[in-house]
Amino acid sequence: MRTRAAVALAPGKPLEIMDVNLDGPKAGEVLVEIKATGICHTDEFTLSGADPEGLFPSILGHEGAGVVIEVGEGVTTLKPGDHVIPLYTPECRQCYSCLSGKTNLCTAIRNTQGQGLMPDGTTRFSMLDGTPIYHYMGCSTFANHTVLPEIALAKVRPDAPFEKICYIGCGVTTGIGSVINTAGVEIGSTAAVFGLGGIGLNVIQGLRMAGADMIIGVDLNDAKEEMARKFGMTHFVNPSKIEGSVVQEIQRLTQNERDHLGGVDYSFDATGNVKVMRDALECSHRGWGVSVIIGVAPAGAEISTRPFQLVTGRVWKGTAFGGAKGRTDVPKFVDWYMDGKIEIDPMITHTMPLEKINEAFDLMHKGESIRSVVIY
Amino acid sequence: MRTRAAVALAPGKPLEIMDVNLDGPKAGEVLVEIKATGICHTDEFTLSGADPEGLFPSILGHEGAGVVIEVGEGVTTLKPGDHVIPLYTPECRQCYSCLSGKTNLCTAIRNTQGQGLMPDGTTRFSMLDGTPIYHYMGCSTFANHTVLPEIALAKVRPDAPFEKICYIGCGVTTGIGSVINTAGVEIGSTAAVFGLGGIGLNVIQGLRMAGADMIIGVDLNDAKEEMARKFGMTHFVNPSKIEGSVVQEIQRLTQNERDHLGGVDYSFDATGNVKVMRDALECSHRGWGVSVIIGVAPAGAEISTRPFQLVTGRVWKGTAFGGAKGRTDVPKFVDWYMDGKIEIDPMITHTMPLEKINEAFDLMHKGESIRSVVIY
Ligand SMILES: [Zn+2]
Ligand SMILES: [Zn+2]
Ligand SMILES: [Zn+2]
Ligand SMILES: [Zn+2]
Repeated sequence: MRTRAAVALAPGKPLEIMDVNLDGPKAGEVLVEIKATGICHTDEFTLSGADPEGLFPSILGHEGAGVVIEVGEGVTTLKPGDHVIPLYTPECRQCYSCLSGKTNLCTAIRNTQGQGLMPDGTTRFSMLDGTPIYHYMGCSTFANHTVLPEIALAKVRPDAPFEKICYIGCGVTTGIGSVINTAGVEIGSTAAVFGLGGIGLNVIQGLRMAGADMIIGVDLNDAKEEMARKFGMTHFVNPSKIEGSVVQEIQRLTQNERDHLGGVDYSFDATGNVKVMRDALECSHRGWGVSVIIGVAPAGAEISTRPFQLVTGRVWKGTAFGGAKGRTDVPKFVDWYMDGKIEIDPMITHTMPLEKINEAFDLMHKGESIRSVVIY
Repeated sequence: MRTRAAVALAPGKPLEIMDVNLDGPKAGEVLVEIKATGICHTDEFTLSGADPEGLFPSILGHEGAGVVIEVGEGVTTLKPGDHVIPLYTPECRQCYSCLSGKTNLCTAIRNTQGQGLMPDGTTRFSMLDGTPIYHYMGCSTFANHTVLPEIALAKVRPDAPFEKICYIGCGVTTGIGSVINTAGVEIGSTAAVFGLGGIGLNVIQGLRMAGADMIIGVDLNDAKEEMARKFGMTHFVNPSKIEGSVVQEIQRLTQNERDHLGGVDYSFDATGNVKVMRDALECSHRGWGVSVIIGVAPAGAEISTRPFQLVTGRVWKGTAFGGAKGRTDVPKFVDWYMDGKIEIDPMITHTMPLEKINEAFDLMHKGESIRSVVIY
């Protein structure tokens, strides 16, 4: 079949909207009509050419929602008409990683996915002249139709609006999941969130759900404060407007009569800046502070600290897709949205048709959007 | 009173054996006759002058065992005749840290202890000319008699031999505790231990107790292999004698038909070398590997890695005194020794009287001892 897609032809160039060929689903695969897709910093990272593993030409996009059109041989858990969210972190439930029960990082199709290919080592997309087009993060939601492995689709309730729940395919789950799956925040905790973009806001609402007492947001841009407070932030720190270091400021905010040291129980980096990752670790509490890296750092960047920070009880972790097991957890997040337990609507600041997808990247560069969504 | 002590008069000089003055215990304090003390790398670190927080003159030593001689006002949990092990990590059971239930790093007397003083801000030791002598790690076990706060003494069974259980005051608890308290190793785990000195051997026997299936020891010195195998090591890697990196070698050793990635579930650095700490992290398994820093790094040294290592599921932690709560856990370790669950005797390679304590440092420098113990 043919479908309409925004194709990344080369790094650093705008996407080109065009018709492309799409082969039908092979065994274990599913054809999905994408109804909406978010545009994420990770798409931008790859499109810009900064991603050393970026492949071109490719169809980017990994934050979608849609409807199953056709299933390939052997597919048993999905049927035409099912509403689904594509998963860049699949959940096969039978690989060594899935069976460990200790990680969400399913390894069943890791190698081919990293090469922009379906599990059989080929692509389903091609140019009208026959040139293969690479898949992206196993999803390629910047096409109106796409093919995914069955294990990379979460089936969700049919009454949830595509143009909102698509964000659960990446940012919402990453932010909230880092709180509840990776950090395991308890009621009454104190926390600091570095970077108040979309991920940071979702960390904040995750902390509110988890019952944190004190949620300190850190951002160089004062304009981020208002929205973050709406999601549950209780204290705001702009590192450019304080005396001393941000670590000292957070220790000061959290000191009290019983605790003269200060420091937060949990901290989260949602900036991708390795210096900020260090601050996040070091502002966490001596003895038990847990710091979670969410942001994606530039290629080659390294984190560092004195080992004393860890020897005195701090724990340094990271998270991918918020530690969420996609097929199991994503439907639950959709329920939470429909039940009003989590908010998404205020974060979807812009919507547009596929033809205007490049405007989403412009809005991101200008810092004017939290999340832009393409509605097909 | 007067007692006999080995005094560190200046950095880089041998200890001097001399009589010193010792004031009796003040309120909340206990006078202990030390019967035996181990000589640890941490003593050497301070004596050498490499420790930026080292104080002189001081009485070093923090790995002792002895008998209570006299208790100060208000002491309720100890009485003369009780057998005790001094604790450089006290356990007050009422500070914010102790009450958190999340750490063993009691903060009740942290500030004065770091300044070489008793909790009231003074020293009990002095030269015969009246010059104050600093305490060390709150213990000063290189004196035949010493004074400690009640909260810094673990009461242990009276039938345990001082010259063996003194090692529980530091190395044994640090090594075994890092496995059972900090890492929380489960039956069937795979593990790597970097550095096969005294701490490394204790990590290995902790792993054996915890039921690890595969215990890989890493050391540049082949002579360490034999003893480590006696404590439970199943595989030995000498990084200078393999092709490729030690990370690759450990991944290769742990790969199998079900797991094509390889990597250990748990790794431990017992070297204090920050490059080794990085290898230890990176050889741990994608998705769930936990790496624990035990060794003390040189002043100013920093650990580093790519954040990707954490984002893909590895956890970087550290441990002090093996995460053990001294008054609660040390008596249990003594029981384990008496019950034959843990071994100490083969690690005590040398004993000597206090007059020959400088020989213990020579043996350490030459790598000829695992642990030397002074018997008073
Ligand atoms: Zn994303
Ligand atoms: Zn899997
Ligand atoms: Zn020691
Ligand atoms: Zn305490």
